Amino acid sequence: MKNTFGTSVQMTIFGESHGRAIGAVLDGLAPGIEIDHEFIAGQLTKRRPAGKISTSRIEQDEFEILSGVHNGKTSGTPIMIVIPNKNLKSTDYTESPRLARPGHADLTANFKYHGFEDFRGGGHFSGRITAAVVAAGSIAALALKNKGITVGTHIKACAGIHDRSFADIKDDINTLNGMNFAVLDSEIAAAMVEKIELAASEGDSVGGILETAVYGFPAGVGEPFFDSVESELSHALFSIPAVKGVQFGDGFGMTIMRGSEANDEFEVRDGKIITKTNRNGGVNGGITNGMPIIFSTAIKPTPSIYKPQHTVDYEKRENAELRLKGRHDPAIIHRARVVQDSMTALVMCDLLCQRFGTDYLMPEK
Amino acid sequence: MKNTFGTSVQMTIFGESHGRAIGAVLDGLAPGIEIDHEFIAGQLTKRRPAGKISTSRIEQDEFEILSGVHNGKTSGTPIMIVIPNKNLKSTDYTESPRLARPGHADLTANFKYHGFEDFRGGGHFSGRITAAVVAAGSIAALALKNKGITVGTHIKACAGIHDRSFADIKDDINTLNGMNFAVLDSEIAAAMVEKIELAASEGDSVGGILETAVYGFPAGVGEPFFDSVESELSHALFSIPAVKGVQFGDGFGMTIMRGSEANDEFEVRDGKIITKTNRNGGVNGGITNGMPIIFSTAIKPTPSIYKPQHTVDYEKRENAELRLKGRHDPAIIHRARVVQDSMTALVMCDLLCQRFGTDYLMPEK
Amino acid sequence: MKNTFGTSVQMTIFGESHGRAIGAVLDGLAPGIEIDHEFIAGQLTKRRPAGKISTSRIEQDEFEILSGVHNGKTSGTPIMIVIPNKNLKSTDYTESPRLARPGHADLTANFKYHGFEDFRGGGHFSGRITAAVVAAGSIAALALKNKGITVGTHIKACAGIHDRSFADIKDDINTLNGMNFAVLDSEIAAAMVEKIELAASEGDSVGGILETAVYGFPAGVGEPFFDSVESELSHALFSIPAVKGVQFGDGFGMTIMRGSEANDEFEVRDGKIITKTNRNGGVNGGITNGMPIIFSTAIKPTPSIYKPQHTVDYEKRENAELRLKGRHDPAIIHRARVVQDSMTALVMCDLLCQRFGTDYLMPEK
Amino acid sequence: MKNTFGTSVQMTIFGESHGRAIGAVLDGLAPGIEIDHEFIAGQLTKRRPAGKISTSRIEQDEFEILSGVHNGKTSGTPIMIVIPNKNLKSTDYTESPRLARPGHADLTANFKYHGFEDFRGGGHFSGRITAAVVAAGSIAALALKNKGITVGTHIKACAGIHDRSFADIKDDINTLNGMNFAVLDSEIAAAMVEKIELAASEGDSVGGILETAVYGFPAGVGEPFFDSVESELSHALFSIPAVKGVQFGDGFGMTIMRGSEANDEFEVRDGKIITKTNRNGGVNGGITNGMPIIFSTAIKPTPSIYKPQHTVDYEKRENAELRLKGRHDPAIIHRARVVQDSMTALVMCDLLCQRFGTDYLMPEK
Repeated sequence: MKNTFGTSVQMTIFGESHGRAIGAVLDGLAPGIEIDHEFIAGQLTKRRPAGKISTSRIEQDEFEILSGVHNGKTSGTPIMIVIPNKNLKSTDYTESPRLARPGHADLTANFKYHGFEDFRGGGHFSGRITAAVVAAGSIAALALKNKGITVGTHIKACAGIHDRSFADIKDDINTLNGMNFAVLDSEIAAAMVEKIELAASEGDSVGGILETAVYGFPAGVGEPFFDSVESELSHALFSIPAVKGVQFGDGFGMTIMRGSEANDEFEVRDGKIITKTNRNGGVNGGITNGMPIIFSTAIKPTPSIYKPQHTVDYEKRENAELRLKGRHDPAIIHRARVVQDSMTALVMCDLLCQRFGTDYLMPEK
Repeated sequence: MKNTFGTSVQMTIFGESHGRAIGAVLDGLAPGIEIDHEFIAGQLTKRRPAGKISTSRIEQDEFEILSGVHNGKTSGTPIMIVIPNKNLKSTDYTESPRLARPGHADLTANFKYHGFEDFRGGGHFSGRITAAVVAAGSIAALALKNKGITVGTHIKACAGIHDRSFADIKDDINTLNGMNFAVLDSEIAAAMVEKIELAASEGDSVGGILETAVYGFPAGVGEPFFDSVESELSHALFSIPAVKGVQFGDGFGMTIMRGSEANDEFEVRDGKIITKTNRNGGVNGGITNGMPIIFSTAIKPTPSIYKPQHTVDYEKRENAELRLKGRHDPAIIHRARVVQDSMTALVMCDLLCQRFGTDYLMPEK
Repeated sequence: MKNTFGTSVQMTIFGESHGRAIGAVLDGLAPGIEIDHEFIAGQLTKRRPAGKISTSRIEQDEFEILSGVHNGKTSGTPIMIVIPNKNLKSTDYTESPRLARPGHADLTANFKYHGFEDFRGGGHFSGRITAAVVAAGSIAALALKNKGITVGTHIKACAGIHDRSFADIKDDINTLNGMNFAVLDSEIAAAMVEKIELAASEGDSVGGILETAVYGFPAGVGEPFFDSVESELSHALFSIPAVKGVQFGDGFGMTIMRGSEANDEFEVRDGKIITKTNRNGGVNGGITNGMPIIFSTAIKPTPSIYKPQHTVDYEKRENAELRLKGRHDPAIIHRARVVQDSMTALVMCDLLCQRFGTDYLMPEK
Repeated sequence: MKNTFGTSVQMTIFGESHGRAIGAVLDGLAPGIEIDHEFIAGQLTKRRPAGKISTSRIEQDEFEILSGVHNGKTSGTPIMIVIPNKNLKSTDYTESPRLARPGHADLTANFKYHGFEDFRGGGHFSGRITAAVVAAGSIAALALKNKGITVGTHIKACAGIHDRSFADIKDDINTLNGMNFAVLDSEIAAAMVEKIELAASEGDSVGGILETAVYGFPAGVGEPFFDSVESELSHALFSIPAVKGVQFGDGFGMTIMRGSEANDEFEVRDGKIITKTNRNGGVNGGITNGMPIIFSTAIKPTPSIYKPQHTVDYEKRENAELRLKGRHDPAIIHRARVVQDSMTALVMCDLLCQRFGTDYLMPEK
């Protein structure tokens, strides 16, 4: 479905980096969910660049909701959210030759759209479009919260430095959701920032791993064979620019375990069936088992770097050298984290409503 | 779409481990593709257990094509492939208590299907169902071959031992497709088998990493934002039982690189734009760039092990101990490899036909 | 989705008239629904030709369920139903020139499948494939019955002769479901048969109108804008060969009414909101209003007739005359009626589960 | 997919009658299509009420394109069109009791959205939302025109008075597309207007039949079994408010024909295979046969009438009388006609791109 995703709860996105606006249509969300504008604005702020480790372009992510909300609550019909593009310097782009930025989609967009694409700032492929995902996903997060389901993401690793693992997941999610640079161990956070600044000083960039936990999600959700929880989540997560890997629970770490270690043994505790460990990330056979859902993504280093790079002019089809100017992040992982939270919230809403119906997320009157 | 996947080329699967049959309906494939029964049978053989490192259950994967083929060629209408289940020992299961096998879907299936599920041998969640994927995917592979596109998978790692990387990808794919135990370096293969046998002797199991290459695939394919090549492939790959991670190109390995290392620089060679390295696995911004498409999956250790495990009786909701009998593989990675090949072939056919139309895979008359 | 339809409950069909088998995969139906083989066989019998007004080909519609049923009840996973083709006389077709039968899909199939199509007996376009719809739809009907929802269809008109309208809908549905030639007024039925026999004696055929009622369906179901009850039903109904029109309630009859006549006034009766009339067929704005859902389809005359017809040989691209031999129905409307019932049951199940979740059709334990 | 329709070319709509804006996201359209703003504005004007036979509310349908267009041409990424709502008199609605307007969706929306719906002016169910369909569909029409495919709709019948049939279809489409009140015979047009004015003078309304022709569409398009041309078109057409019936070719008229009359005989003319008649509306077996595609819809009389009507207050659940004030059309058929044109253009683009790929509609460079 190209720019639309979801079955019962659906999101359609649109927009280009240097066009008039970006935005999203969020459809299928239950009626009666209160819209907390401050929360949405706060989530957008987490995605916005800030300080030394982010681009100095000031993106004004003022969103407007044009439909689907009545008297401050969702009405059940499509919610249209638009975020106008401001602070544009399109003249940066007008006369430049068509140099394909390595690691970006400039060239593949050209292959696909035959030169008609809006290439300015990456166009539709810009990370900017994820602001629409955050706006829509924040409404999904509000819907989940009403049902006692919370989502949180931390920078599990950045430039090779690792944060501590999730411990008390409910608390950790809470803590993370109050943070701008979402690392559970504050000393580790400082070390990561140092690494990012070092890369920046060398005209280079870094990547890392984002790990997400979903707490309070019911068991028995997921549609095998093809629409497993893992399939649906990975489909959405791989849409986020810079994501090059997705793993559930211990993921690739399980490949060096024995079965006796990788299997999560079951046990009855307080009348409830739980697993003693959670190496499978809360999902067996594509269906949730009632444990926290845990997964992580590989975020590649920001492809925009100041170091000169070899590339091609794809109009002239000749070799060239690229020296990027303008504003570029040495890391986007701390910003991508709220995108991952938001995308997760959307998918979880969809899975719940496929399973339990379209009224499931409606608050008690 | 639950048990159906794909947009232009679609597969629907059905069946349970101990039911009458498993199978698949393959729809949307172009007319005129010659059905090579021997090739399909050969692929099914690769998935079948054999020798010491696999279960001793002899699965007779005799497939029948009931529709969609006329005069030995695809007719353009749905291809129905059925594989009867034989050699069943269902009595193994009839009187047993409902003990949830750790790492399996017994419990989550029970949560979802409320006790009505066919639990025998894992039912619909059994790895056996992947034989249907292989049968259908083999026809997709034949369609790709007509267009000069080949797919191959090797055991990149097993029990912590690593195969060499892809070198000459076209040749390597060829080599792999002639192998039953698909490892590029034969000494490494022997070491892996040793590790598997060791685990088996201890009543345990091992996992590993499967890496796939697609050669000859055209540039400019993939539908952003949500139906990127990565999204579509990962959606299908995570449906394969035991897959807990998917990464493209260097994937999680990119998270410790600098941008200057992770970016694949472009260059014009013989009038064609290529990348000097292929850390992004042939995909930029969700669209193919004309380089080989490379990705790998994390295959967790086979959950069925002989070692005693703690678990629960989920009918009585009480703790229990599980001691598995019967036939179980100490490793399935060498068998899963042809499932990954087949699933990949299906997704690649779908992506091509979404992009270039439903006749694209039709051979020249 | 080509040969797959539905969102929460899905059907995939396959097969050709003269292939080895036809069948369907029914996916997403709730677990626990008892399979009444006799009922399904009875529905298939209603579709089978019989007596003077139908073709003398004896179709043996012996169905087998190969998956998705455990201990006589649905297990929640895909239900695969196969109906082998027997009694074939394929030699009828081998040497004949490729004459496009007017009103059939021979020529358009050739345009689409470039000569690779299985043209024998219309191949995938044969009415025979509707036996698969009946088998799958009968299971859907069983699921609805558990919830007090019934579906019935009568021959509203045949060869210009009209049956009486629905009166007590619950009773009428009951009556119709016990009939082979589903006409509410028995004198009208006799007159229709006479007309059919007259047409047959002249080597010709007739058509008519099938009207369906759904009783007991809850209010508030349907997904606007695009997945309205009317949109979903018409999508499925137009798939039935020979259907050339679909209308809800008074449909085209409303086009000569005034608004004051066409509007169904509301009224509170016994604490429940009902409409005094039901010209809109139980649907307002694409959503059910709790009244019986009523719609009808235009069934064109059977295109296979004995009268000589002008046509073309589409291989030689020259004009020709067609004189059909073999077994052909002078009318199929009395057989199509159970196809319409079955397709309706499928769509209604899907709409319910989209709205109320995948467990909605599960019987109370 | 609720408010999204289409497979290769997709439209997502949003908005409410008295909300801030309505609009559409058009996705999957090929790059390079020139946007003719004047044409789009002209189409919107045709939908706008005007003169005595339409409501006196002046709707300012000033559309803005916020994404997907670069240098005046489609870029290949989602085209977002927004039409702000102006000239609102929401105070009309604030204090009124919740009286369900007969023939409208007020009550069913309440059933579905539990009172959270934006009921003002029908909210999301208002005919106003069709302006978004017209804006998006006009771009689709421009894409078709580049390929020599044209679409035109006439008022086949209004209040029981019938226009002449299509004759020279190419010319007739041309003529119709220049008209505001699209009737081929000008005397008939005058008689229709008279009937509309008569109904208006009596506080009542009328309906009619809209017939559409698509000229120049290639043969061999359509995806059986379920995604036939008829299924796809009817799915979209039944989404248009007031449509209660859809028929192809002679549709319900075929039900009183004999097969020998209903069958369109084939013939080779100038080396091309054509049909002598076109009673099947250019579609056999769900696939186009190269003849003009012809279908018609039943448009029920406008449900908003001034005559007092019995109804219910659905909050208090008691009987009530409704006396509508404000601005209401005695007929909407002349306005709905451009909605039908637009919806048709969208579906035809989707069918073409499913069949021939995503670049098919791209103009020659």
